[in-house]
Amino acid sequence: MAQKPSIPKGTRDFSPEQIAKRNYIFDTIKSSFENFGFQPIETPSFENSSTLMGKYGDEGDRLIFKILNSGDYLKKANEEILAEKDSLKLTSQISEKALRYDLTVPFARYVVQHQNDITFPFKRYQIQPVWRADRPQKGRFREFYQCDADVVGSRSLVQEVEFIQLYDDVFTKLELSGVTIKLNNRKILSGIAEVIGASDKLIDFTVALDKLDKIGIDGVTKEMLAKGISQEAIDNAQPLFSFNGSNQEKLEQLKGMLESSDKGLAGVEELSEIVKTTEALGLNSSRLTIDVTLARGLNYYTGAIFEVSAPEGVKMGSIGGGGRYDDLTGVFGFNDLGGVGISFGLDRIYLVLEELELFKAVEMPKPKVVFLSFEIEQQINAVKALKSLRAEDINCEIYPDVATSNKQQKKQWKYISTRKIDYVVSKIEGELYTLKNMKNGEQQECNLSQLVETLK
Amino acid sequence: MAQKPSIPKGTRDFSPEQIAKRNYIFDTIKSSFENFGFQPIETPSFENSSTLMGKYGDEGDRLIFKILNSGDYLKKANEEILAEKDSLKLTSQISEKALRYDLTVPFARYVVQHQNDITFPFKRYQIQPVWRADRPQKGRFREFYQCDADVVGSRSLVQEVEFIQLYDDVFTKLELSGVTIKLNNRKILSGIAEVIGASDKLIDFTVALDKLDKIGIDGVTKEMLAKGISQEAIDNAQPLFSFNGSNQEKLEQLKGMLESSDKGLAGVEELSEIVKTTEALGLNSSRLTIDVTLARGLNYYTGAIFEVSAPEGVKMGSIGGGGRYDDLTGVFGFNDLGGVGISFGLDRIYLVLEELELFKAVEMPKPKVVFLSFEIEQQINAVKALKSLRAEDINCEIYPDVATSNKQQKKQWKYISTRKIDYVVSKIEGELYTLKNMKNGEQQECNLSQLVETLK
Repeated sequence: MAQKPSIPKGTRDFSPEQIAKRNYIFDTIKSSFENFGFQPIETPSFENSSTLMGKYGDEGDRLIFKILNSGDYLKKANEEILAEKDSLKLTSQISEKALRYDLTVPFARYVVQHQNDITFPFKRYQIQPVWRADRPQKGRFREFYQCDADVVGSRSLVQEVEFIQLYDDVFTKLELSGVTIKLNNRKILSGIAEVIGASDKLIDFTVALDKLDKIGIDGVTKEMLAKGISQEAIDNAQPLFSFNGSNQEKLEQLKGMLESSDKGLAGVEELSEIVKTTEALGLNSSRLTIDVTLARGLNYYTGAIFEVSAPEGVKMGSIGGGGRYDDLTGVFGFNDLGGVGISFGLDRIYLVLEELELFKAVEMPKPKVVFLSFEIEQQINAVKALKSLRAEDINCEIYPDVATSNKQQKKQWKYISTRKIDYVVSKIEGELYTLKNMKNGEQQECNLSQLVETLK
Repeated sequence: MAQKPSIPKGTRDFSPEQIAKRNYIFDTIKSSFENFGFQPIETPSFENSSTLMGKYGDEGDRLIFKILNSGDYLKKANEEILAEKDSLKLTSQISEKALRYDLTVPFARYVVQHQNDITFPFKRYQIQPVWRADRPQKGRFREFYQCDADVVGSRSLVQEVEFIQLYDDVFTKLELSGVTIKLNNRKILSGIAEVIGASDKLIDFTVALDKLDKIGIDGVTKEMLAKGISQEAIDNAQPLFSFNGSNQEKLEQLKGMLESSDKGLAGVEELSEIVKTTEALGLNSSRLTIDVTLARGLNYYTGAIFEVSAPEGVKMGSIGGGGRYDDLTGVFGFNDLGGVGISFGLDRIYLVLEELELFKAVEMPKPKVVFLSFEIEQQINAVKALKSLRAEDINCEIYPDVATSNKQQKKQWKYISTRKIDYVVSKIEGELYTLKNMKNGEQQECNLSQLVETLK
């Protein structure tokens, strides 16, 4: 016997039950996106390598899946590179296309390419898979979905307020109460680096600070020292290591700490505005909290930074994130186009809902009624009835094989019970259908119109 | 300025308008699939190369997109092969994964891998993109969607009847009247080859016959001769070159022609059964016609063969196809599992509907009402109103940037007209909202609950 087949690590098959649950999340996110005025776009699964490479740092470049050129791809390859077995240098000679690594860079490419057809501000959403050659682990896959909403062509803070509402709206609809929407601002991080005297080490400083949750104060201190940040600067940053209280209290503390930095104060001002409006509006089931340790892809963001964490007690990385960027499309030659966006991590949200048993209401795709088929003569009346039922939008099917033996009849009934079918047409005599309700065992004989009426 | 970015040939970006139209087709197909009792599954975008290679013939192997291994992929590559620049031999050493080429082979792999979790007969549908390194042309892309429905684990002909109904159901819902569902049977093709004395040339014979539409009788004759089929056999096959009449008449002709072939007669018997039941049921907007020149992937099919062509006058290759196979999963070690399935070609159906202007009823995703934003003080009342409207499922948004100049105000109104927005809140004073109906120009002042009521 042939070897049992398998799929590449980090990828998954989805069963009908899993698809139903995933669609429940997709549909919820999609309906909120449209409710908030976003329009869908889609981009190809693979892009020209030049579009993707160099946009995610060296590590990102390594994790991008490259597609081998078709045909005699070695023909024009450089002999020296081949002889030296230099994989890195050969790649660009034998591969011109690569799988999408995220939705943001393809979106930026889209905006530049189609700028003349777009009405700005452009509110787009995009729900598509992305691929990363990362090491698979819990909540991390090599093929996974991102659900992104972005607005480009506007610098108004009302968008940040809207995105917080959008997060709250989606998680409320999913009945996932108690998520924390963490909020920070790049200008505050810059301001902090400035006032503690570590402006030249901004990225090292924030990358280390971002790990406070995971490695604690000692770990962060150690990393900062290792990166050449002075003990004095670290001492000055002490208030951040035990930063707590209400959002208002945090804002007051930050204002004090950053009073000598114009940039820092501008960040505090933005945060205050967003917090004030959000508090006036209220949130249905989420919590908004200022988190100055939040950095994410720092080089990228210029204003607000968002991250969403699952309710307390659920161990899972962030289930969403985003922020404001002032020059997303500059790399493709369209400068100074501001924007802000957020992303939902479908696969992690799925795992969280599964863990909290929040899929209970999801209906499995199954027919409402199945026609058994004992004798070939009944089949024509069965398919006639199927046609009438479907015209009324009642999902139905016929068990295809005529059961001529006891064993086959048992197989039919096993099919019915395994798939948890609610109604069965177990007998057809002339124009009379015997309908069995599998939940209570009741049987009734009815003609076609009665059958349709009962099942409607 | 950087070079304007582009996408790989044969791939496409989809605008919000195109997505809306595509979703209209997807949703229609999906609802019919579920209406007929099919359940959704999904498989990864890439499979292990061993799963795909060798399943589609040499030409197929060439058209499969291969993914370069990550990391130092040349490390273990054979030096001789590198020195010889032997692309074909190197591929398996530097690439272990490949993009899905169709949905059928991944489905077969899925069935074998998950056989213990599946209740047979298994009616699955799958709507996902596939990739082929084919030369792009009208209706042929390098990334395109297939929408497949298959039943495995049953040999009942009632499935063939159901699939014809399913085609008719989908195209009727899409208001695409007049498609032709062509029907043939592999056994008939075998029977014909047998009776004309060309059994050893079955594939060459059918491949040539399949081209009758395109190259005419002379072309087909020439190709058959070139493939070593005797003039006598070709003469015996003459009736097929001008095969017409009603389905009943065709069945009669076939019965006569194939009377010496048991296999051929078995095929005629199957065809008769399917045609009889389909005629008893009726078709809403499609036409079923026997086409003995229809061969498709012959090696693959063992019984019925389907193909759907667009209404007359529309130049487009087949917009759907399928058939019965008796051993789909044998190559993965699960023998003797019969099945039958059909596929819808989303991208071609799209082009046909576009050409016939059948997208008129498709609604574009856009907010029902847009709030302008003249002064910053109004924003808080605007976002409060947005929240109330969204709670009633009314899609809405705020134009984010405060228009402080004439130019900016013009830009706002241009946004409204370009996006064909129906309602605008143009002014907010305290709790009073000025709602403008853009279709008739009427304005009214209302409070929040009146606003919600009007727009509901």
